[in-house]
Amino acid sequence: MHGNAGRKGEERAGSATPVVVVGAGFAGLEVAKELGRAGIPVVLVDRQNHHLFQPLLYQVATAALSAAEIAEPIRRILRRYPSVEVLLDEVMAIDPQAREITLATGRRLGYRFLVLASGSRTSYFGHGEWSRLAPGLKTIEDARQLRSRLLLTFEHAERVDDPLERSRLMTIAIIGGGPTGVELAGSIAELSRFTLARDFRSIRPQNTRIMLVEGLPRLLAGFSDKAARFARERLERLGVEVRTGSMVDHIGPGELGIAGERLPVGLVVWAAGVGASPLGAEAGGRTDKSGRVFVEPTLEVTGSPGVFALGDVARCLDADGQPLPGLAQVARQQGLHLGRGLAAMIKDGKALQPFVYRSRGNTAIVGRHAGVFERGRLKMSGWFAWLAWAAIHVYLLVGFQHRLLVSFHWLWRYITYERGARLITFRDDTRQPPPARDAANDRERGAAG
Amino acid sequence: MHGNAGRKGEERAGSATPVVVVGAGFAGLEVAKELGRAGIPVVLVDRQNHHLFQPLLYQVATAALSAAEIAEPIRRILRRYPSVEVLLDEVMAIDPQAREITLATGRRLGYRFLVLASGSRTSYFGHGEWSRLAPGLKTIEDARQLRSRLLLTFEHAERVDDPLERSRLMTIAIIGGGPTGVELAGSIAELSRFTLARDFRSIRPQNTRIMLVEGLPRLLAGFSDKAARFARERLERLGVEVRTGSMVDHIGPGELGIAGERLPVGLVVWAAGVGASPLGAEAGGRTDKSGRVFVEPTLEVTGSPGVFALGDVARCLDADGQPLPGLAQVARQQGLHLGRGLAAMIKDGKALQPFVYRSRGNTAIVGRHAGVFERGRLKMSGWFAWLAWAAIHVYLLVGFQHRLLVSFHWLWRYITYERGARLITFRDDTRQPPPARDAANDRERGAAG
Repeated sequence: MHGNAGRKGEERAGSATPVVVVGAGFAGLEVAKELGRAGIPVVLVDRQNHHLFQPLLYQVATAALSAAEIAEPIRRILRRYPSVEVLLDEVMAIDPQAREITLATGRRLGYRFLVLASGSRTSYFGHGEWSRLAPGLKTIEDARQLRSRLLLTFEHAERVDDPLERSRLMTIAIIGGGPTGVELAGSIAELSRFTLARDFRSIRPQNTRIMLVEGLPRLLAGFSDKAARFARERLERLGVEVRTGSMVDHIGPGELGIAGERLPVGLVVWAAGVGASPLGAEAGGRTDKSGRVFVEPTLEVTGSPGVFALGDVARCLDADGQPLPGLAQVARQQGLHLGRGLAAMIKDGKALQPFVYRSRGNTAIVGRHAGVFERGRLKMSGWFAWLAWAAIHVYLLVGFQHRLLVSFHWLWRYITYERGARLITFRDDTRQPPPARDAANDRERGAAG
Repeated sequence: MHGNAGRKGEERAGSATPVVVVGAGFAGLEVAKELGRAGIPVVLVDRQNHHLFQPLLYQVATAALSAAEIAEPIRRILRRYPSVEVLLDEVMAIDPQAREITLATGRRLGYRFLVLASGSRTSYFGHGEWSRLAPGLKTIEDARQLRSRLLLTFEHAERVDDPLERSRLMTIAIIGGGPTGVELAGSIAELSRFTLARDFRSIRPQNTRIMLVEGLPRLLAGFSDKAARFARERLERLGVEVRTGSMVDHIGPGELGIAGERLPVGLVVWAAGVGASPLGAEAGGRTDKSGRVFVEPTLEVTGSPGVFALGDVARCLDADGQPLPGLAQVARQQGLHLGRGLAAMIKDGKALQPFVYRSRGNTAIVGRHAGVFERGRLKMSGWFAWLAWAAIHVYLLVGFQHRLLVSFHWLWRYITYERGARLITFRDDTRQPPPARDAANDRERGAAG
């Protein structure tokens, strides 16, 4: 009762922030910027202190870029907007009736409008137990851990004498044939074929077996058939085994199950799916099976007045009634639209307009000189699409310094085949190879001595 | 018995590697390179996969550089020497009689000559319990953790309403007034005065209280009195409180004790001392009180034939009978000397020569435009010494790419006062401020609501 009275007191006193934005991804940042530009008080809450340029995260995981090159402090981005306050905190609960959120530090914040832009997380489709064995790729820590595990598979293989165990360690499976899976497979193939080729004495990294496993009949579901065929052909040229129409039914320590077959593997990477942040449901909205909350054309959560959802949190339909994909450009456009709309509503009382998505094109890369780019009828693949991919991504990087650095690293890598960020930073769970197999090896060595 | 027989069997079979080098720091790398140049088989063992450019580690800790810019994969550095094998592993035991080492993976390696170049670690002079509260700075992980803790103190202070608690959080103490402590204090002062100045709404980062605590009567013990006075004056101009002649006698959660006085602090950084790696003692050598092993002028461990120690592991005397300091240039010169000497001995039977150290000068920086550089009678401080410091450090960076990147970052920082690597990557122990004080704050807020 005391807590409730306190909350009501706050509301009566009009202490609620006009807009609380949750998440500083592509969507949330745009909302905060537009409202900041209009001088409207905003509190932006994020669990991290940095905005992450997710489309290039796989390059951190494969040692091509450093984490700091694709992450920008949120405070720096929003520094010029004095009405925007940034809070490093996490939303634990939403009370849509009282219009109040509770944060992990115990703090409570009242709001007039709440914008949920908290993105998505790796989803294992009900197999949560796979998360430890097949890491996903959503955060900087994920990328660093994947990079360490990836580089450690080669280190472990170099130390092992048993040829069977060595070939197990040098088998890498990527689950999921969307853009992330395709880009990861291509990048890991180039890492092992070119960058690491001369660095080891006992193993030949260029013989690494790399598998890309996809449940659907073809790669790159969001692209044309032609792009999918191009990606497959280019990956196979890099030595990647592409297995489409293959459902993963088991992941165990050092073991991957595909349609009943059990394969010994050294590393499994999960790029197969994401689920929406649970905040949409927490705000009282109805969600689809991947957790996205249903929204009105204005991006307002259906049935929760004053609450908006955008980016990966929202199930927003396009003109054909299909849900929009979880792309950076969708999130960015929604953020821009809602930010401007809220500013006009708060300042001038104007009604919100429905959101209309305008695709700027879809792009992914397979490796050196091999990209796909599609926009409406325009469908490109190969060298020019690869350049277009690089130009778009450099352009979209938030800070000017990052653009220069990333361009420099790419140019360097292009010329030398080197990768600058080959750091293994140990974590307990990645330090040692699976103990059972290794102990067996030591016994063999001992007996032979 | 079985194990012993196995070992003897290996030795009889002549399977021992001519030279095993432990540690890929400045000393170990030079030994491996010189032997590799001569085509002599070498196994280089290191716990990390990268060589770390330690003199710039404080810049990673203060968000100025990325980890990958000062770390280079050992395999890449030694790639061109086919006789050099790199093992990612850790030495657990040395048997100088059997001339054999045991690694963390259980593997055993015989050697003809063993080179110990495993460096030093943070030492708390018998106060091991301080390590959790006052992190040191020796590894990439240390630097990342310190960076996160440093940036989090500002984030926590921004969230707190109680002015006393806020000023506690915004008090940072650096223990140790050697080059690392001075450089850390200067860099943290510049971070809070310039880089973060406009990023917060509730706190003023430029009001951060920064203390540099040193037990001796003055800073920079390895430098002249003049340099020490210059450093103190420049630090004070940056707003750093310099406390010389002050012994730390207590470190508790949020609390620092200096000569009986208890100060509330938000962050304590330990830059006060290092102790040698314990491998010198493990090899049977006699050690001094900081764990360094006594060596002959040839760098051979006294009383352990065939075992050599260099860099921070060795207690090596100069012409005046004083132990050489733990500097990169000492380690590098020793590595070069021993590598060439061992190559000449193994190939041509030549006797080892005594090592003579030639100082290339001592340098440290206090902040923008403020460095000290001393070599023999030449003693510089100020703008030119600051440039000399930067030029020397860029020159010494191992990879060409790193030189370009670090130069670029420094130039960028010089012009914009920005720092590129302001990443907080959460660890459980750094995520929340000390709970007791924070809970008190929440109660206060609750009562006021």
